Amino acid sequence: MSEEVICFESEVRVRFNETDPLGIVWHGNYISYFEDGREAFGRHHGISYLDQKKYGFATPIVKSECEHKLPLKYGEVAKIRTTFVDSSAAKMIFKYEILNAENNVVCTGKTVQVFVDKLGQGELWLTIPKFFEDWKRKVGLLK
Amino acid sequence: MSEEVICFESEVRVRFNETDPLGIVWHGNYISYFEDGREAFGRHHGISYLDQKKYGFATPIVKSECEHKLPLKYGEVAKIRTTFVDSSAAKMIFKYEILNAENNVVCTGKTVQVFVDKLGQGELWLTIPKFFEDWKRKVGLLK
Amino acid sequence: MSEEVICFESEVRVRFNETDPLGIVWHGNYISYFEDGREAFGRHHGISYLDQKKYGFATPIVKSECEHKLPLKYGEVAKIRTTFVDSSAAKMIFKYEILNAENNVVCTGKTVQVFVDKLGQGELWLTIPKFFEDWKRKVGLLK
Amino acid sequence: MSEEVICFESEVRVRFNETDPLGIVWHGNYISYFEDGREAFGRHHGISYLDQKKYGFATPIVKSECEHKLPLKYGEVAKIRTTFVDSSAAKMIFKYEILNAENNVVCTGKTVQVFVDKLGQGELWLTIPKFFEDWKRKVGLLK
Repeated sequence: MSEEVICFESEVRVRFNETDPLGIVWHGNYISYFEDGREAFGRHHGISYLDQKKYGFATPIVKSECEHKLPLKYGEVAKIRTTFVDSSAAKMIFKYEILNAENNVVCTGKTVQVFVDKLGQGELWLTIPKFFEDWKRKVGLLK
Repeated sequence: MSEEVICFESEVRVRFNETDPLGIVWHGNYISYFEDGREAFGRHHGISYLDQKKYGFATPIVKSECEHKLPLKYGEVAKIRTTFVDSSAAKMIFKYEILNAENNVVCTGKTVQVFVDKLGQGELWLTIPKFFEDWKRKVGLLK
Repeated sequence: MSEEVICFESEVRVRFNETDPLGIVWHGNYISYFEDGREAFGRHHGISYLDQKKYGFATPIVKSECEHKLPLKYGEVAKIRTTFVDSSAAKMIFKYEILNAENNVVCTGKTVQVFVDKLGQGELWLTIPKFFEDWKRKVGLLK
Repeated sequence: MSEEVICFESEVRVRFNETDPLGIVWHGNYISYFEDGREAFGRHHGISYLDQKKYGFATPIVKSECEHKLPLKYGEVAKIRTTFVDSSAAKMIFKYEILNAENNVVCTGKTVQVFVDKLGQGELWLTIPKFFEDWKRKVGLLK
């Protein structure tokens, strides 16, 4: 585990159709906000879905968790703080914090992704693919 | 235009996350109900997305229209009446009526699809593909 | 009909979960992009959902139309050009153009909204509410 | 904790717009399938969203977890097995198993809900509301 913490902050504006009859964002839509955060992180740090695809990999989510602390309403603009969780496993792990305009934590979460080879037979990789090792080296997580 | 009218009725239960802060189904979700109706029609009459795919075709929507008469609320189960609109053009046209439990028309709509060859270069077909002509014959729209 | 054309341009980034097995934005999601455009227009020109709510009105969509010209793929950032269509009826009418990065028209559309009194019995207004007349005057559509 | 296990099985048909460019159900949509399962359980056992509402309560989700084992594709009809997890806390806890047509587990999950008083000030209840205690008695979880 590296000392280095790599994170990225992006913004999301709540859509009207993401809110429910209680007037708040429907809980399942936070999974979409996590993906927004992860992809904003990925575009910034060069490890987005499209980057992975260039190397012949897809990284399906195998686990996601979400804890809700406060509601978000229509009209709010939230901040998504996405943090890469380093691990020696052949996995991509991210943690998320969603904050409202008053900087209060609305929701926290975590996702785990695995590496699937799209050029080959679609098999699951049990070791870290070279492109991901190279990426870790580039961002300072590996010497 | 044939005298024959081919239609199919299916049901849809309103999901909580399809309703908005006004407590009613968000207008854009009716496009999803139309697709439910079209695919229920397609499974029954042998012309669904997966049937088309077997013949190497996709049929992207090029036009959709929707008129809203009444709201649907969470907990309601609606009926989707999907009608095939016969035409000599290389198009698939459907009309939709969505009815509530009291049999009142909630919403009407129409979609137009074209034929795109997925086995070839993905080009648009300007004439009716053979599988669709065969289908029309099978259901009695062509002699 | 006024000579004045009031419009607003906003941007939308295609989400991964808005694209379908054909790799393109599912057609129904454009209704959500129209709403994004309409609300960006509304925030800029002071006639958004939350502005209307302050005056005690909701403006449900009674009609929407959408024509698709080109696909959008994951990773694309599109421009939404929303134009207010002036009319003497007690309606809010908007037209939309969605353009890709090469400035090609991906999709066009139109929505019609009516005025419903949320403070009273929820009835439909057949004449233009005062707040909307005031707004038209403010933006130069009424003298 | 009671010996009694209360569960319910319902079905869900995968929608085209729930699948992604990899051709499989986008992971976030399983949260919607969990809600389908929970509400089907609720309608059967008399503890649905609308039942709770009658007693003046809403039960927002404060935590959700989802583990993905296998993909679901367009055209598949899955089974949702929803199990009530009894607890002495002022919470509603459900576990979910989603199974494909071959009865293989596609996904498992869990949600935790709390009780919020909609008739009063919207406060969180730290003790079990009477309607929920009554429900537990009715279904045999309390003597």
